[in-house]
Amino acid sequence: MRETESQSIKVFALGGVGEIGKNMYVVEVDSDIFVVDAGLMFPEDEMFGIDIVIPDITYLEENKDRVRALFLTHGHEDHIGGISYILRKLSVPVYGTRLTLGLVEDKLSEAGLLGRVTLKTIDANSIIEFNHATVSFFRTTHSIPDAVGVCVHTSQGAVVYTGDFKFDQTPVDRYGSDMGKMAQLGNEGVLCLLSDSTNAERPGFTGSEKAVGVEISKVVYSAEGRVIVASFASNVHRLQQVFDASYEHGRKVAVVGRSMVKVVDIARNLGYLHIPDGMLISPQDIENYPERQITVLTTGSQGEPMAALSRMAKNAHKQVTIRKGDTVIIAASPIPGNETSVSKTIDLLFRAGANVVYYGEKKIHVSGHGSQEELKLMLNLMRPKYFLPVHGEFRMQKAHARLAQDVGIDRDRIFIVEKGDVIGFRDGIAQTGTRVQAGNILIDGLGVGDVGNIVLRDRKLLSQDGILVVVITLSKEAKRIISGPEIISRGFVYVRESEQLIDHSTKLVREIVEQSIKEYSIEWSTLKQSVRDALGQFLFEKTKRRPMILPIIMEV
Amino acid sequence: MRETESQSIKVFALGGVGEIGKNMYVVEVDSDIFVVDAGLMFPEDEMFGIDIVIPDITYLEENKDRVRALFLTHGHEDHIGGISYILRKLSVPVYGTRLTLGLVEDKLSEAGLLGRVTLKTIDANSIIEFNHATVSFFRTTHSIPDAVGVCVHTSQGAVVYTGDFKFDQTPVDRYGSDMGKMAQLGNEGVLCLLSDSTNAERPGFTGSEKAVGVEISKVVYSAEGRVIVASFASNVHRLQQVFDASYEHGRKVAVVGRSMVKVVDIARNLGYLHIPDGMLISPQDIENYPERQITVLTTGSQGEPMAALSRMAKNAHKQVTIRKGDTVIIAASPIPGNETSVSKTIDLLFRAGANVVYYGEKKIHVSGHGSQEELKLMLNLMRPKYFLPVHGEFRMQKAHARLAQDVGIDRDRIFIVEKGDVIGFRDGIAQTGTRVQAGNILIDGLGVGDVGNIVLRDRKLLSQDGILVVVITLSKEAKRIISGPEIISRGFVYVRESEQLIDHSTKLVREIVEQSIKEYSIEWSTLKQSVRDALGQFLFEKTKRRPMILPIIMEV
Repeated sequence: MRETESQSIKVFALGGVGEIGKNMYVVEVDSDIFVVDAGLMFPEDEMFGIDIVIPDITYLEENKDRVRALFLTHGHEDHIGGISYILRKLSVPVYGTRLTLGLVEDKLSEAGLLGRVTLKTIDANSIIEFNHATVSFFRTTHSIPDAVGVCVHTSQGAVVYTGDFKFDQTPVDRYGSDMGKMAQLGNEGVLCLLSDSTNAERPGFTGSEKAVGVEISKVVYSAEGRVIVASFASNVHRLQQVFDASYEHGRKVAVVGRSMVKVVDIARNLGYLHIPDGMLISPQDIENYPERQITVLTTGSQGEPMAALSRMAKNAHKQVTIRKGDTVIIAASPIPGNETSVSKTIDLLFRAGANVVYYGEKKIHVSGHGSQEELKLMLNLMRPKYFLPVHGEFRMQKAHARLAQDVGIDRDRIFIVEKGDVIGFRDGIAQTGTRVQAGNILIDGLGVGDVGNIVLRDRKLLSQDGILVVVITLSKEAKRIISGPEIISRGFVYVRESEQLIDHSTKLVREIVEQSIKEYSIEWSTLKQSVRDALGQFLFEKTKRRPMILPIIMEV
Repeated sequence: MRETESQSIKVFALGGVGEIGKNMYVVEVDSDIFVVDAGLMFPEDEMFGIDIVIPDITYLEENKDRVRALFLTHGHEDHIGGISYILRKLSVPVYGTRLTLGLVEDKLSEAGLLGRVTLKTIDANSIIEFNHATVSFFRTTHSIPDAVGVCVHTSQGAVVYTGDFKFDQTPVDRYGSDMGKMAQLGNEGVLCLLSDSTNAERPGFTGSEKAVGVEISKVVYSAEGRVIVASFASNVHRLQQVFDASYEHGRKVAVVGRSMVKVVDIARNLGYLHIPDGMLISPQDIENYPERQITVLTTGSQGEPMAALSRMAKNAHKQVTIRKGDTVIIAASPIPGNETSVSKTIDLLFRAGANVVYYGEKKIHVSGHGSQEELKLMLNLMRPKYFLPVHGEFRMQKAHARLAQDVGIDRDRIFIVEKGDVIGFRDGIAQTGTRVQAGNILIDGLGVGDVGNIVLRDRKLLSQDGILVVVITLSKEAKRIISGPEIISRGFVYVRESEQLIDHSTKLVREIVEQSIKEYSIEWSTLKQSVRDALGQFLFEKTKRRPMILPIIMEV
């Protein structure tokens, strides 16, 4: 399949660089376009009301006839969460391992797309031939089973994307990294490596998932009442360890929380989760067993206020309420940005009388991403000619670049790319300087991309000091106010405490409008601006607040 | 001054328990009320538009004739930040050490209260006699100089509040903890100890400020260009170490950022900061020196978007712009809740070309609060009969309570109090069960307490999906619409992309109103509710969003 003359290769990110989330990388070999991953990102603080953020795929839409495949490295939201939106615009076969596709099917079914998309199951040994390249895979260890790296073989060498990985020398079950294959890729020649920068700032090794199992088992053993474990649903290894520890210590397990129920179901059906018969009980049956024989597996490890764990703590969950004697294990660390909500949940649990075991105190969580020593190991196995640190914020990419220099990769061969920056390769030599369109698409409810900066700016303004609506009905002919001004506020001040303020405002507006009508013809935009300015200034003087002021003039 | 028969003693917190911030503790001895600290808290995420939060002091206002003194333990915002608001309602002498009062004076002067308040300077050796109690102090080490603990001596023993503290065995300058005096208090008999729980979850010792100085000096030594150090302004020890390191390596220091300039000024004038002559230069003169001879000391260590450091990184600061070759030291760790903004600032600095040294990589910050071993040391020095873990969220109080049990304090003598819970003492025996009013007062602009739950709920709603204002002018007599419906939205969708939606909505509203007018008399509240319901449902179906809908009916 390979051309003998040099191919034109392009590598770029549509998401996942300069940010944590919405991973999407593109490898182009002559006329073949390969997309790897289709993630989503959760909105930042300033993105008021936005549900999720996905990559701008304009470039792929414009070249849709050349897009040959979407490869998925693993089943986390930041790698597969955008798939329904993307497959609505792009008709392309999707390749993934069994568990990954199991999770994707669930998403597609919710979006009504199941059956309209070609899903192709691969495993780490699959090799797929395309017109201008061959694609292979290699097994990696991550905090979800069945993760793979993707390798696009070209005439100039391989372009390798690691996906998310760590090196766990004592992995749970069978999910070890295939170091032999990685070394072999290195031996055969890697043109360009894209590697996971998440923990590039963290010295040492990340630590084994097995160690977490040992801690969980200790806590389960010594707990005198019920044990409630909150974990990421997709961390099937950890779920397995919770089942194992519960089995070992004679506890039944009830599963609570929508996504937890779903993942346990999918993972069990596909054979990734091994649960002895009779061990799983319905949440309704919890009270039929002595407390010492109960483990509850739940969502909510990030302190999400609507997730099962928070509701249990607030006595707002239908089936489980936290009570004195319960031991709660939060087997996850807060994702950056979630620190406050996790703290609040821990406080709620303590207040409800539980003994809470959480990150910081005991080793009940390890990251799924390799630390500095592991990143260096990957670099040394692959020995790439060129290196792109991806999957991380700018400072993580930067830290990863430093590690690459430490292991001997030339500074000139390391590219810290932004979304859309294209690295081209000709005759094995990299070229920079071109770009494709890239950015964020904000999703709010059913709207994809219909909320932009102006709407967000308004939401922010509204959230700060609220709004004052000023309505006046004018008779254009008679040149006089025939109704109003009526002032209605929301989110500004207690109306009861501010009657005088509103009275003064009303009077002020009336004067401005009457003055304007007298002096000029009624020009709406000018009149509105005068109302906005005068009222804004008046209110700021009186309250030091700047509510949005919305003058509406009705004409009869 | 002490009565021979048993006094009535009450101890409670008006702020600082179940939270980090707005510390305010009250000790009542018969008819004398002593207040310790008057802090503020910064608003939580959900408190849209709120500037600061202070304690509800209704109880003190209701008993203002009995309030004898306000003691301040140190000059941090969470201990003195609420003082202007409180002194407007309460006329009471304020006692504090020189630096603390220096910072308070600045606040009072901004609030126009200077000269109208009695400020009494104390030092760690002061002893003050009141009608029913004697008050003394003891020196502690914290991340601001001149911190003290407060001791109210009663006939039943001493009530001691530690203030914020750590034990630094190699403190910078002269600010060591007075362990001798603490031990003496323990020997004489401590009835009740209130101690700082901030780091009660953290094993071991916090570490010495000196170690930070060593790291800063190393970085300053090896930096080839300018060094920019961001720190909390009030951490005068650290500022001193930055000056020392700069002096040692032949650098001038420019001070940038309003609060940094202010604190350097106050601390220098009061003799807490020693700066060799000629070392301080104006920010305007930075460019007159070689880069290797410049240190910039700045605010913004918490990633505050408007602080000097962020503005330098974004090329939006008047005097300093970060450029390639600069070394930026962020000599602080993020306060919980600020993690994201700090990360963003670090990214901006890297993008601007700086080498950034930040927490995690090097030991360029230590906490000002003692860890578990230090908290146990304090407990063992004081050997209190009763113990109240304060200054912390619930889980920290809980962790501190466990430490107290570990050192041998009886479980029944440890109280994890909420704001307003009163612990009374009679004949040396504690009594629980009574409460005083306590809570949060929200401050927005000039408004103190005029923003409550309804306003906040509205702001939250507005921030999520914006607002639709629907205006109609009706002729009541003619029973018909004479103008409108006019629909105006803010923060909902791009108007350009939603013309059709607004057209449909307008039509829908017209139908509802015309129908209502025909069928019933025009009853405003019913009519408004019908518009709200029907339009809300329509918009949710079309967009899956729930904007606030504000129907306004004008009558002519």
